[in-house]
Amino acid sequence: MTSVVVAGAGSIGSLLAAHLARVAEVTVLTRREEHAATLREQGLRVSGRSDFTARLDATADPAALPADARLAILACKSTGLEPLAARLEGRLPQATVMTIQNGLGAEEIVAAHGSWPLLSAVTFMSGTRHGDAHVEYVLDTATWIGPFRGTSFEDARRVAELVESAGLKAEAFHDLRPAQWSKLVFNATVNGVAALTGLPHDFHFAETERPSDLGHLVRDLVDEGRAVAEAAGVDLHDDPWEMNVLATRRGHRHFPSMLEDVEARRPTELEPINGALVRAARRHGVHVPLHTAVYRLVKAKEAGYS
Amino acid sequence: MTSVVVAGAGSIGSLLAAHLARVAEVTVLTRREEHAATLREQGLRVSGRSDFTARLDATADPAALPADARLAILACKSTGLEPLAARLEGRLPQATVMTIQNGLGAEEIVAAHGSWPLLSAVTFMSGTRHGDAHVEYVLDTATWIGPFRGTSFEDARRVAELVESAGLKAEAFHDLRPAQWSKLVFNATVNGVAALTGLPHDFHFAETERPSDLGHLVRDLVDEGRAVAEAAGVDLHDDPWEMNVLATRRGHRHFPSMLEDVEARRPTELEPINGALVRAARRHGVHVPLHTAVYRLVKAKEAGYS
Repeated sequence: MTSVVVAGAGSIGSLLAAHLARVAEVTVLTRREEHAATLREQGLRVSGRSDFTARLDATADPAALPADARLAILACKSTGLEPLAARLEGRLPQATVMTIQNGLGAEEIVAAHGSWPLLSAVTFMSGTRHGDAHVEYVLDTATWIGPFRGTSFEDARRVAELVESAGLKAEAFHDLRPAQWSKLVFNATVNGVAALTGLPHDFHFAETERPSDLGHLVRDLVDEGRAVAEAAGVDLHDDPWEMNVLATRRGHRHFPSMLEDVEARRPTELEPINGALVRAARRHGVHVPLHTAVYRLVKAKEAGYS
Repeated sequence: MTSVVVAGAGSIGSLLAAHLARVAEVTVLTRREEHAATLREQGLRVSGRSDFTARLDATADPAALPADARLAILACKSTGLEPLAARLEGRLPQATVMTIQNGLGAEEIVAAHGSWPLLSAVTFMSGTRHGDAHVEYVLDTATWIGPFRGTSFEDARRVAELVESAGLKAEAFHDLRPAQWSKLVFNATVNGVAALTGLPHDFHFAETERPSDLGHLVRDLVDEGRAVAEAAGVDLHDDPWEMNVLATRRGHRHFPSMLEDVEARRPTELEPINGALVRAARRHGVHVPLHTAVYRLVKAKEAGYS
């Protein structure tokens, strides 16, 4: 069996690690040794759309990672990527490294810490962590994978097949940017609005009946994002407005991570998501007053934590 | 002594009632009989910039108000004005009625319930209620008064003199709209941003150093508001941006009422403030994307209470 490292055991990392452990030798890199010990001793339970307990190895020490790992998935949040990449510097000599963070810029952060071949990914699946050794598989939507540096479509396809064989949904792309930007525009809009209103991603986000309805603002934000993508030469893979409408019809109240972060007064992914979009707009000379406002408002909200 | 009714005993109503009780026969109209009883028995204590306990009459029954009252100040929040005016219908035959609510439209609401001569007021003073019978006088800034219907500048001047003789600051205006609109633009901006960010009105609102700074958004919102005033033919009495900068330098953390309202999950004054500004913009053909966004975001925040 091929050896795979999954670095970061939040909900996405846990879902990937547990499923991949059915078809590969998985080692999870955690931040806390206590977390690694729990995973080694109890395994990692998946409930929800899957139902099994995976046996896998885990460590909090990058030096203990298997030197023969062929794939390393960096599954931490954007806010944790820079320190994680630094911890991996000089390690995993045989691995292709795959990022899966929200927003833009993850690949560049990792590229600065080593010469690994790199794959990009965006994921639309979701889960809820119920503890260090238990994750609930909530949305069984796909993970999309594309080449970034020193990799080809074939490499992306092989990893997508591995993920599929593990029981998750995955698809390989020749160019991931159209999908990445669709999710960027979607996330900048939905996460920002949720963080400011305190609303989960519910029906309000698609309402456009009365002039006061929130859906108008969501659509205007999507339109601004679309203009930035166009100026950046990216032909969006999915319409973020349709993604929004579909998601609000799923019937369960999804709490965007930025809303959870501001409610817990944690640092948010504002910079790699909304900040990245606003900066791309400036670079390409696109006027995005609404995204700039949302960005400044969430930034100020974070400034108020102290 | 002249007989004065103060309807509503929140912080502004309490400050007015207690001070006016030094120079007039004051009757406070409360919503709760228990509140009226406490005021009758204990009087109304003022601390902070004034320090005394006023003796005054109080009732929760509009029928018990003195028929010879010459002045009635409606000092409830905008959200309570319609039911209050309805309770006063057919009463106070000799009174001039003065509104003092935030935003626009208070005079019209009262005018629909009786033929009283009407005065408009805006107040910049502030207080903190510490209980039914105790209010702290915090900011000793002025109350501005102008004629509205069936009244003249002379009437406004007489009331301003009465308020001044009671130990508060007041000034009469020939036309109150320039002052009212300055406060409208200021309030729509500062209250909206505070409600969304969770920040009290502090230094962040005037910061314009980095592109991410909140002051840029505040200034853009003020500029939109200024354009609406101009289109409405109103020459602002004060520059709302300067009002903002000055207020953030006062050195005490002021919590705008809309922030307090959303934190307590109470209805806010969004409609008479931000809603009024957005509707005026539409009426006059002025594009106000940022105020429209703030309005929709706070509206959605309120929708999330349930």
